[in-house]
Amino acid sequence: MAEEAAVREQAETVRRLKQEKADPDEIAKEVAKLLEMKAQLGGDEGKHKFVLKTPKGTRDYSPKQMAIREKVFNAIISCFKRHGAEVIDTPVFELKETLTGKYGEDSKLIYDLKDQGGELLSLRYDLTVPFARYLAMNKITNIKRYHIAKVYRRDNPAMTRGRYREFYQCDFDIAGQFDPMIPDAECLKIVHEILSDLQLGDFLIKVNDRRILDGMFAVCGVPDPKFRSICSSVDKLDKMAWEEVRSEMVAEKELCPEAADRIGDYVRLQGGLELIEQLLQDPKLSQNKQAKEGLGDMKLLFEYLTLFGIAGKVRFDLSLARGLDYYTGVIYEAVLLQQERQPGEEPLGVGSVAGGGRYDGLVGMFDPKGRRVPCVGVSIGIERIFSILEQRLEASEEKIRTTETQVLVASAQKKLLEERLKLVSELWDAGIKAEVLYKKNPKLLNQLQYCEDSGIPLVAIVGEQELKDGVVKLRVVATREEVNVGRESLVEEIRMRTSQP
Amino acid sequence: MAEEAAVREQAETVRRLKQEKADPDEIAKEVAKLLEMKAQLGGDEGKHKFVLKTPKGTRDYSPKQMAIREKVFNAIISCFKRHGAEVIDTPVFELKETLTGKYGEDSKLIYDLKDQGGELLSLRYDLTVPFARYLAMNKITNIKRYHIAKVYRRDNPAMTRGRYREFYQCDFDIAGQFDPMIPDAECLKIVHEILSDLQLGDFLIKVNDRRILDGMFAVCGVPDPKFRSICSSVDKLDKMAWEEVRSEMVAEKELCPEAADRIGDYVRLQGGLELIEQLLQDPKLSQNKQAKEGLGDMKLLFEYLTLFGIAGKVRFDLSLARGLDYYTGVIYEAVLLQQERQPGEEPLGVGSVAGGGRYDGLVGMFDPKGRRVPCVGVSIGIERIFSILEQRLEASEEKIRTTETQVLVASAQKKLLEERLKLVSELWDAGIKAEVLYKKNPKLLNQLQYCEDSGIPLVAIVGEQELKDGVVKLRVVATREEVNVGRESLVEEIRMRTSQP
Repeated sequence: MAEEAAVREQAETVRRLKQEKADPDEIAKEVAKLLEMKAQLGGDEGKHKFVLKTPKGTRDYSPKQMAIREKVFNAIISCFKRHGAEVIDTPVFELKETLTGKYGEDSKLIYDLKDQGGELLSLRYDLTVPFARYLAMNKITNIKRYHIAKVYRRDNPAMTRGRYREFYQCDFDIAGQFDPMIPDAECLKIVHEILSDLQLGDFLIKVNDRRILDGMFAVCGVPDPKFRSICSSVDKLDKMAWEEVRSEMVAEKELCPEAADRIGDYVRLQGGLELIEQLLQDPKLSQNKQAKEGLGDMKLLFEYLTLFGIAGKVRFDLSLARGLDYYTGVIYEAVLLQQERQPGEEPLGVGSVAGGGRYDGLVGMFDPKGRRVPCVGVSIGIERIFSILEQRLEASEEKIRTTETQVLVASAQKKLLEERLKLVSELWDAGIKAEVLYKKNPKLLNQLQYCEDSGIPLVAIVGEQELKDGVVKLRVVATREEVNVGRESLVEEIRMRTSQP
Repeated sequence: MAEEAAVREQAETVRRLKQEKADPDEIAKEVAKLLEMKAQLGGDEGKHKFVLKTPKGTRDYSPKQMAIREKVFNAIISCFKRHGAEVIDTPVFELKETLTGKYGEDSKLIYDLKDQGGELLSLRYDLTVPFARYLAMNKITNIKRYHIAKVYRRDNPAMTRGRYREFYQCDFDIAGQFDPMIPDAECLKIVHEILSDLQLGDFLIKVNDRRILDGMFAVCGVPDPKFRSICSSVDKLDKMAWEEVRSEMVAEKELCPEAADRIGDYVRLQGGLELIEQLLQDPKLSQNKQAKEGLGDMKLLFEYLTLFGIAGKVRFDLSLARGLDYYTGVIYEAVLLQQERQPGEEPLGVGSVAGGGRYDGLVGMFDPKGRRVPCVGVSIGIERIFSILEQRLEASEEKIRTTETQVLVASAQKKLLEERLKLVSELWDAGIKAEVLYKKNPKLLNQLQYCEDSGIPLVAIVGEQELKDGVVKLRVVATREEVNVGRESLVEEIRMRTSQP
C-alpha cells in the first residue's frame, strides 16, 4: 500500500508540473522517477512496506513545538480578549454546498470527503465562510468573536517557509451595522498589537479597498465580467513581477494591452494620506462612484489609525488585491520585513502573516431572505510565525521546558515504591505537579538525572529514617541543597519554592 | 443542491434501518418519506433552496457553550499537567493505511477523504493510533503526553445524549518499558481526579483485562479465530441484555450454545480484590496462562489503587470488553451513576465518560522492525460531560459571562468619538480589556445597557469637562457609584477594581 501512495504522490507532482508548464527538463526528471517507482512496485508486489509519515503538507507538533505554539496562542488570545471578543467553534467539515461559490479560483483547493452515503461534505477552507453560515443559521446580527482552528487547502506546500495543507487560522471578526471604519480600524489595531507583542521584527500592514480596485478596473477599461479574474492576477503581484502579471492578463485573460498598462500605472502606487488625497483628485478615479466611496473611507480609516497611533506602520497600496471573492470593502495584509538589509536598500517582505477585510455580502448569501449582516475581520497566519520563532529558538540554543512538574518523588533505598506512591498521591491531591519513576527500585542517580533532563526543580526523597521522623528530604536540583521538611508542611514548602516571582 | 442532500441523508437512514433489520413498519415509514422527498425534488427542479445546517452529527459551539468547554478543558489539562505530561498534536487526517486494521468491526465508521489525486486519506478515528504512529515515526520509546483534539466517526449520532460524529477526545498516555501496573494505576488515578474535580456526581470505574477475557474465552471453549468477534459481542453488554448478546453469539457468530452459557456465567461477575482471589482459585481459569497473568496484574493494580485511595470507586467487571482491536492488557471504562434512586436500588450507569487500557503491540505495528513500545492510556469523553454541565447550567439560570471586558469607554455628549478612540487605545496598550461602541454618537443609556447585557463591571466616561480637568469619570455598573480619576492613574484604578480576589 505504501509504495502505491508514493507513486500516486509522484504522479500528482508530474501532473502539477505539466499544468504549470514547468521547465521540460524538470518534468522529464520527475517522469523518469515516476516510471522507476512504478517499475519497482510491479516487480516487488506483495512485499509492501508501510510508509511512516504524515500526509503531504501536514506535520506533527512535538512537545517543544507545542510549547512555542501555546506561547503564540496565548499572546493572540489575550489580544482578542482585550478587545472584548467572545469565542465560538464550528465543525471541521461543512456541507459541500456551503463552501460552493465563495472562494473564486481557489475553490479547486478545497478537500472533499468521500461519498460514503449521506451528505456531501468538504473540509473548511477558512473560518470566515463557516462564521457567516453560523450567523445566518442563528440569525445573529451583532457579534464580536474569535475562532482559532485548523483549515485545509490542497495547495502545493512549502513547509520550510511555513506553508502547509493543514494550518491554523486565528480569526477575529466584528459583525453588525455600525458607523463606517471604526471596527475596520480596530482590526488593524489588533494586528499591530499582536505583531508587536510577538516581537517578530519590523512589519508593514498594506491596505486597499475592493471598491477602489473595482473603480480602478472600470476606469482602466476592464470589462465588468473580467473584474474578478483580473483581480486574481493583481493579487499575484507580491510573488510575480508586473511584466509576468501583465502577460497573464493579456495572454491568458484576454485583456487589451492598453487597459493592462493603465492598471500597471495605478498598482505601482503606494503611500499614506497624501496618496489618498492625490487619488481623490485623480480626474478619472474621482469620477467613479465606487472608487470615490472607497477613497473617502480610506481617508477616514487613516484618521482613526492616527488616533490609535499606528498609522506609521500602515501603507495604502493599490497592488493589494486578495483573491477571495467575498470581500466588499477595505482589505489588508500584514507582512514581516526582512531583518538585515544594506542602508538605502528597500525593505523586502518575507511573507504575509495576517490578512483580512470587509465582507458585507457573505452572510446574506446564506440567509434565506438575503438579509445582510456587514462584517469585517482579520486572520492571523500562525504557521509562518511558528516557523520564525522555532528557527529563532533553535539558533539560540535556549532550553525550553515541556512540562511544569514541580517535584519528583524519589527514594534512595529499595522497597519504598509503596511509600513513593502514597506521597505522590498526597501531592497530586493537594494540587502539586508531581511525578514518580515507574520503577520498583530506581537508583537515586537515575531519579536525579531525570530531574536534570526535564528541568524539575525539586526532589522529595523518602527513606527509612525520614519515614520514622515524619519528614521528607527536599532537595533543590540546581543547588543540591537538601533540607528536611515536616510531612505536614511539605505542600506549602513546595508551593513557596516553585511560585513564579 | 439542498434537497438533494436531504434526500441522500434520508436514503442513508433507510439503508441503515434495513441493515439493522429494524421494525418493518418503521422502515416503511422512512421509505415513504424518501419517495415523497424524491418526488418533490423532481417536480421542483432548478428551484433549489439552501440548507442552513451543520453536517449530520456535528454542531457549532456558541460563546456560552465555549465558556463551559473552556472550564472543562482547564480542569482536564490541569490534571494532565499535574501528572507531568507533555503535549503533542497530530494532523486531523492520516494516510488511510495508517488506520487500516486497527479498529476491528468499527473500521466501517472511518471517514475517508475523496480521492482528488495524491495520497488516500482518512479522518482520525481516535488519538491513540496517531500517537502510536508518532512514536514509531520519531523512534520515541519513552514519553508521557496528552493530546486534546477532535476525532471522527460515521456513527449514528444521538446528540441529545452527547453522542456526535465529530467529538473531542482528551487523551493521556504513558509509553515505555516500566514495572507492571504502576502507569496503569496512574491512569485510573487521573480519571478519578478529573471526574471528582468536575463534580459530575457519583461514578464508577470498571476494569478488566484482555488477557482475562481471552483466557475466559479459551476455557469456555471459544475457538481461537472467534475471540475478537465474541469479544465485540460481550462489549455490547452495557447496552443489551445478556439474552440478546447470547443470541448474537449463537445465531450470528455460530458459537456453540454451551460455550455461550459458560461465558454467561463469567461475565455476570463483578467485585474487588475478593473476586480476583476467587478467580485465581477458579479450577479452569487458574490453569490458563493468560488469565493467570491478567489476574495477577489485576491484584497488583488494586494494591496500587488502594495506596492512591481510590479502590472504592473501581470495580473489576468481567463483562467489560471494549471493542477496539489494539488492547492487550488492562482495560477500563468510567461511567456516571444515576443521580436519584430509591434506597436499595442498584446505581444505574448513564453512560461512559472515560475509557482506555493497555496496548503493548500497537507501536510495533508501525515500526519497520516491529520494535514494541508498551503503552497505556486513558481518553476522557468530553461531549457527555459538556451535555451534563450544559443542562445543569440551563436549569440553574445562572448567568455566565462570555467576555472578560473590564471597562467600556463611553461618552455622554456627542462628537467625542475621537476622544473615546484615543482613550480605549491607551487602555489596550496598557493591557486593559476594554471596549467602545462602534457608533459616532451613541446614547449614554445604550452604552450603560451594553454593560448590563454583557456583564462589563466598569464604564470610563469622557466628556468636555473631564477632558478639561484631565480626569475620566469611572462608573461602577453594579452600584452606579461614580468617581473622577486622574487620567494618569486610570489604568491602576481599573486594575485594582477588577482584580480577582
